[in-house]
Amino acid sequence: MNISSLQEARYAYVPKLPGMLRNGISEICVKEGAATGSVADQEKIKALFPMTYGKPEVTFEKGQNTAAAKKQVIGVILSGGQAPGGHNVICGLYDALKASDKNNVLLGFKGGPSGLIEDDFIEFDDAYINAYRNTGGFDIIGSGRTKLETEEQFQVVTEVAKKHGLNAIVIIGGDDSNTNAAVLAEYMAAHGTGVQVIGCPKTIDGDLKNDDIEASFGFDTATKTYSELIGNIERDANSAKKYWHFVKVMGRSASHVALECALKTQPNICLIGEEIAAKEMSLSQIAGYIADSVEKRAADGNNFGVAIIPEGIVEFVPEFGRLIREINDLLAGENTEKFNALPDWTAKCEFIRNGLTENSFKVFEVLPFAIQQQLFLERDPHGNVQVSLIESEKLFSEMVKAELAKRKAAGTYKGKFSAQHHFFGYEGRCAFPSNFDADYCYALGYNAFMLIQYGYTGYLSKISNISKPADQWIAGGMPITKMMNMERRNGKDKPVIRKALVELDGKPFTYFAANRDKWAVETCYVFPGAIQYYGPASVCDITTETLKLEKM
Amino acid sequence: MNISSLQEARYAYVPKLPGMLRNGISEICVKEGAATGSVADQEKIKALFPMTYGKPEVTFEKGQNTAAAKKQVIGVILSGGQAPGGHNVICGLYDALKASDKNNVLLGFKGGPSGLIEDDFIEFDDAYINAYRNTGGFDIIGSGRTKLETEEQFQVVTEVAKKHGLNAIVIIGGDDSNTNAAVLAEYMAAHGTGVQVIGCPKTIDGDLKNDDIEASFGFDTATKTYSELIGNIERDANSAKKYWHFVKVMGRSASHVALECALKTQPNICLIGEEIAAKEMSLSQIAGYIADSVEKRAADGNNFGVAIIPEGIVEFVPEFGRLIREINDLLAGENTEKFNALPDWTAKCEFIRNGLTENSFKVFEVLPFAIQQQLFLERDPHGNVQVSLIESEKLFSEMVKAELAKRKAAGTYKGKFSAQHHFFGYEGRCAFPSNFDADYCYALGYNAFMLIQYGYTGYLSKISNISKPADQWIAGGMPITKMMNMERRNGKDKPVIRKALVELDGKPFTYFAANRDKWAVETCYVFPGAIQYYGPASVCDITTETLKLEKM
Repeated sequence: MNISSLQEARYAYVPKLPGMLRNGISEICVKEGAATGSVADQEKIKALFPMTYGKPEVTFEKGQNTAAAKKQVIGVILSGGQAPGGHNVICGLYDALKASDKNNVLLGFKGGPSGLIEDDFIEFDDAYINAYRNTGGFDIIGSGRTKLETEEQFQVVTEVAKKHGLNAIVIIGGDDSNTNAAVLAEYMAAHGTGVQVIGCPKTIDGDLKNDDIEASFGFDTATKTYSELIGNIERDANSAKKYWHFVKVMGRSASHVALECALKTQPNICLIGEEIAAKEMSLSQIAGYIADSVEKRAADGNNFGVAIIPEGIVEFVPEFGRLIREINDLLAGENTEKFNALPDWTAKCEFIRNGLTENSFKVFEVLPFAIQQQLFLERDPHGNVQVSLIESEKLFSEMVKAELAKRKAAGTYKGKFSAQHHFFGYEGRCAFPSNFDADYCYALGYNAFMLIQYGYTGYLSKISNISKPADQWIAGGMPITKMMNMERRNGKDKPVIRKALVELDGKPFTYFAANRDKWAVETCYVFPGAIQYYGPASVCDITTETLKLEKM
Repeated sequence: MNISSLQEARYAYVPKLPGMLRNGISEICVKEGAATGSVADQEKIKALFPMTYGKPEVTFEKGQNTAAAKKQVIGVILSGGQAPGGHNVICGLYDALKASDKNNVLLGFKGGPSGLIEDDFIEFDDAYINAYRNTGGFDIIGSGRTKLETEEQFQVVTEVAKKHGLNAIVIIGGDDSNTNAAVLAEYMAAHGTGVQVIGCPKTIDGDLKNDDIEASFGFDTATKTYSELIGNIERDANSAKKYWHFVKVMGRSASHVALECALKTQPNICLIGEEIAAKEMSLSQIAGYIADSVEKRAADGNNFGVAIIPEGIVEFVPEFGRLIREINDLLAGENTEKFNALPDWTAKCEFIRNGLTENSFKVFEVLPFAIQQQLFLERDPHGNVQVSLIESEKLFSEMVKAELAKRKAAGTYKGKFSAQHHFFGYEGRCAFPSNFDADYCYALGYNAFMLIQYGYTGYLSKISNISKPADQWIAGGMPITKMMNMERRNGKDKPVIRKALVELDGKPFTYFAANRDKWAVETCYVFPGAIQYYGPASVCDITTETLKLEKM
């Protein structure tokens, strides 16, 4: 057995292109809109991107292709964390490029941006591409987290491009990678290299989203996979009726993934980082909020439940953020050695008490013992607390347990509380792309070629109207600079694509907020089941609840 | 949104019955085989089951139904841990019962065996049943772990049965529950109650399996769900190329689940408890075995991998089992208080050193610190170590890390090792049943009714030839006593259904053993993807690799 029967079957799947791209390359014409400006800080962004700023939005239509004929040699890289559908972006790009001219060449640079710098590449052919159609993962050429951002790197990339005769580079990545794609595009234009740069919006986190980009690819498949598991756990909880399950889901700082999973599965609790920050909630308030649900359900005889915790939650709790900063300061320099030399935890606690502000020590005091230890004992090579390693699902379940013990003593709570913990992240990043992601990604790649053929650079491949069936999708491109603003990063003002957080006045959150009180007390679970690639369209072709609500 | 689109679609699925059951109740006749005897300890089992021992195997065939006409009032319970398909057993039972006579009655006793004792029940009707067709979970009536085994309980059950006019009870459960079903059947027969008892073989663990029962239901769906996730993680590992993933899978003591997942996904490592016990491997040997794979892969530049760890693994490591027993003895009685009163971990370690045998202390010494603490600090109400809570996936990754550090110092290993941990259990127990489990379970339930109608008791509903398409399946029944032997349990000899462990000379393990050296070094991952309920039969109707190999 070398490949699974599903993989074999998925090879035969033909992704659906937007209607306007279905007539062959020779029947795709371009329509330019008005000049664009960045969403904020127009003057600054314009000054930083003199060659690529202010370009028009582009839409493709059915009509005679007017692009100049030339041989295309294109390089492509995958950047950052895996997202289902990345292979299909490359397949769409390859198919368009070969449909245009058999002699066109697509090079895949390996292991992410570093492959472009180290000139580590393969040339794609039909056999190679066919083994990756409609599959998950980034294993086709690998990925990596090297950032492509310095002048020196750009010089090397220029040399590599010259060596291979590259006339374009396609960067498949998240907001940071596409910010860097815009900077590279500007560099290439300013230096007259003739190399175009086109980005494609990737990330399961869902935070690369704005007026132009309706969704990043991978978000649909990843949230469907996590929701499958959360639904299964809800059904288990409702069958066994004895556990509260605390489920942490991946998604970096923004809570889009958690929110989408909650909309799909209707758990008893789902924390949203952006709300917690806006309301400046404390850890104890959050624990109290969860404990309220536990208590009310227990009063109905239901000593079970499901709570979704977004990966980045602790960063959104103001008092916790301050505590982390104080700990990092406290243990800077030679203090670390002093601290480590203390004989036992009691002595260490005394050191901590003296070193923190009173408020932060209070926060520290209410943390579970294991988390207290983790904050001081497991630190990165720079001596900093490793926030991403904090098991927030256990943090909250322990704090809820402590709160319930108090309520039991006070006589207001009479139930039983037993917790199970889960973290879903790697489970969803490399799933076979859903039909939606398979179609969307293939279209993004196909469309990226059209942008290249028509000579554009510094653009993001843009497929819109994606809450509708694929034949109604609109293909085109938008200057990346249009999505940018200036932000403070590592002490410097930088032009970046604005990261999309959950909007508390947006429809997805509003819908959730209107229903969650009922979900917290009653058992309203929904069981989405495994992603289906075949069967009724209602089961296998529908994308996210988030997008559905946003487009309502 | 109240139900998911998949659930809506699954309501319309029509489970496939064995060919011989497809002609309607009136066209099902019975054929009896020769008298049976238990697999071992025949005299003892016969003496314990005078009324129900030695009965013939039963097979149903197409032909005129000769069962005596009478109104059927049947009770059903779900016992023990959830397994996908339990709802379909009840649906099949209900459909057969109603097809036989609209006036027949099916009562569901709630929350497991305790529902039968507490007379907590519902009467099923079409609307109720239809909401659960082809769905996962046991939430239709709930489940529970109460054991139905004492004379007092049987008396209560007799009263409840009399009150409702029950003429049969169907018990859907694992080996223990079906052992108890046989004892209850004998009791009911010996006391002339006229109540028949029929069992159905349930468990995701796969350890209820023998010459007569080819597979327990739920194993197919659960292992497909875990394998989906393991495959996704493999693809992620092969894309990011930076982590070793240690994946623990549920399945109690036997390693069937781990083995089936390994056959489906071809990971670098899969531990099999039964082999470790047979070879009397030590923890260090196991860690060394895994480290060998890490080292060889690192030599090829592959600092990533996937290892599957069965839930029950530590119980199979002889030295670890001894350590646990010694700790339980050491901290019995007032010693617990003495131990807890010791001022710090150093003092506690001294106490432990003095209390354990030299060999066991050596084992204790090599354990990671967190596991050492867990063994002594997190104990059950009886003061015993909670083996099921031991995070064996972390235990082995820590030990491998320590072993690699030694090898690095010795200069034989030059790679990087970074681990991620996962535990999959609750994620798979309540998935929507695969087509196989949906069909198999429906047939088990339908067939259970036929056994009741023909007057049998103390039988397990038996559907065989299940590696073939459903029309070739064979329906019938086998006396539970035939599967029994005497075993020592809690200091007493008891008649029990023999639990099936992984057979080291069986075909599934032999195939695995023949391939694992290659898998350990090369990257031979297979990505099964999500369970499909629609699409090509090769994708959505095939059952386990284990069964395929066993029937080869």
